[in-house]
Amino acid sequence: AMAGSGWARAVRGLLLDVSGVLYDGGADGGVPIAGSAEALRRIKASGLKLQLCTNETQATREDFVRKLRALGFDVSVAEVTAPAPAACRLLKERGLRPHLLVHNDLVPEFAEIDKTNPNCVVLGDAAENFTYANLNEAFRLLIGMEKPVLISLGKGRYYKETDGLKLDVGAYMKALEYACDIQAEVVGKPAKRFFESALAELGVPPEQAIMIGDDIVSDVGGAQQCGMRALQVRTGKFRPSDENHPLVKPDAYVNNLAEAVDIILQQL
Amino acid sequence: AMAGSGWARAVRGLLLDVSGVLYDGGADGGVPIAGSAEALRRIKASGLKLQLCTNETQATREDFVRKLRALGFDVSVAEVTAPAPAACRLLKERGLRPHLLVHNDLVPEFAEIDKTNPNCVVLGDAAENFTYANLNEAFRLLIGMEKPVLISLGKGRYYKETDGLKLDVGAYMKALEYACDIQAEVVGKPAKRFFESALAELGVPPEQAIMIGDDIVSDVGGAQQCGMRALQVRTGKFRPSDENHPLVKPDAYVNNLAEAVDIILQQL
Repeated sequence: AMAGSGWARAVRGLLLDVSGVLYDGGADGGVPIAGSAEALRRIKASGLKLQLCTNETQATREDFVRKLRALGFDVSVAEVTAPAPAACRLLKERGLRPHLLVHNDLVPEFAEIDKTNPNCVVLGDAAENFTYANLNEAFRLLIGMEKPVLISLGKGRYYKETDGLKLDVGAYMKALEYACDIQAEVVGKPAKRFFESALAELGVPPEQAIMIGDDIVSDVGGAQQCGMRALQVRTGKFRPSDENHPLVKPDAYVNNLAEAVDIILQQL
Repeated sequence: AMAGSGWARAVRGLLLDVSGVLYDGGADGGVPIAGSAEALRRIKASGLKLQLCTNETQATREDFVRKLRALGFDVSVAEVTAPAPAACRLLKERGLRPHLLVHNDLVPEFAEIDKTNPNCVVLGDAAENFTYANLNEAFRLLIGMEKPVLISLGKGRYYKETDGLKLDVGAYMKALEYACDIQAEVVGKPAKRFFESALAELGVPPEQAIMIGDDIVSDVGGAQQCGMRALQVRTGKFRPSDENHPLVKPDAYVNNLAEAVDIILQQL
């Protein structure tokens, strides 16, 4: 029924989430999700445009692409839209000097940014850097600012790694928001501006693009807010309760990326 | 003007917050706030009833009282109302078996509680135990429950120690609430039930009791919700912006506990 409805007929480009769609991450480097590398090749062979739209903030795009290639995915740095470069543009526009609470491996993305005498905090998925001491330090800097500015690279609740679910940056964002009685500015999915920059790189208007992700709120809800269609895969962090989400309803559910690509290519 | 208004004339008992009122805590054991030990002696000599009403969850009441006595405060365990014993009563009532994410030194308060095969998480001010690994563990237990139960020993934003401000349990509570899309049950201030148990131990009805604390929300707001008068001291975590709080207005501000006691005893 879904394949027959023809909703993908006008599609010219795909935005793909990465973790939970192409692979499941983990300290061991992660493992590809069955069929996803082949699905990626079929997208490229079909002539559809492709952009990876990720909230990954545990590595520079260069290292991230290296890891994906080692897992068998044919991708390049130019095909990756990620929060850190978007945050750097925002910092420069507004003359902000960040204190970084991010993963060590992300720090090189901020090499060009003045970090002296910080007037904001940039929060990423810092993983092992989310220590009690580091959280207190970020909190003290914020609470000491006349007008605290907290920039969060995403607001995900959690994600799945090979050894289990992990709290994502959104949980730590909420902790700092509450402690300082402020609202963070989110860079990354589901921010509209972030999807718009991914669409610009894709070179396709929203009504001709489909987002495919495992996160009902950040991927599906965010893309739909921008006028795109969005599919939720039943891989990665997908949970059956997502199918009863009170606010977000995907245009379709698919078992995995391979099935999504089957359906889309059939309709073209 | 405040001293002349006579609002303390009917008072028969005082509830005192401890950290930020009697002393400022810290890894070094903390330091007494000037005049507070003498003020405590004057309260006792006056015949006013006294109960310490604290959200302290970094030590058993026995160890906490030992620390306070070493700092010069004449207090006993029976004079301390604290969240952990209140949580134990709640756990027993409801047949809950907790996973504890609390300070090591608080664990003995839960000695009598069955902790096998946990069906809830109890969160305290775990301080150095707020590691990335421990937060992920608590999160995974919660998200794996059919109906996650998170019991938080307080919901404070932050507190002041001798080496600076620290994130309090409320910030970590918010992180887990967000990640699991749940609401924690708060035991401790500002929960009405907690103030009521402190008043029961004080043996005085709310309209004859005054709460004195440094936390505009947990101490002042919580006590007023129970029908008590409440004073905010300008010590501890007090910040000038508290005086413009949008929701809570203390019955009076006082510079410190010593001034509060001066004013109250003048009116008796």
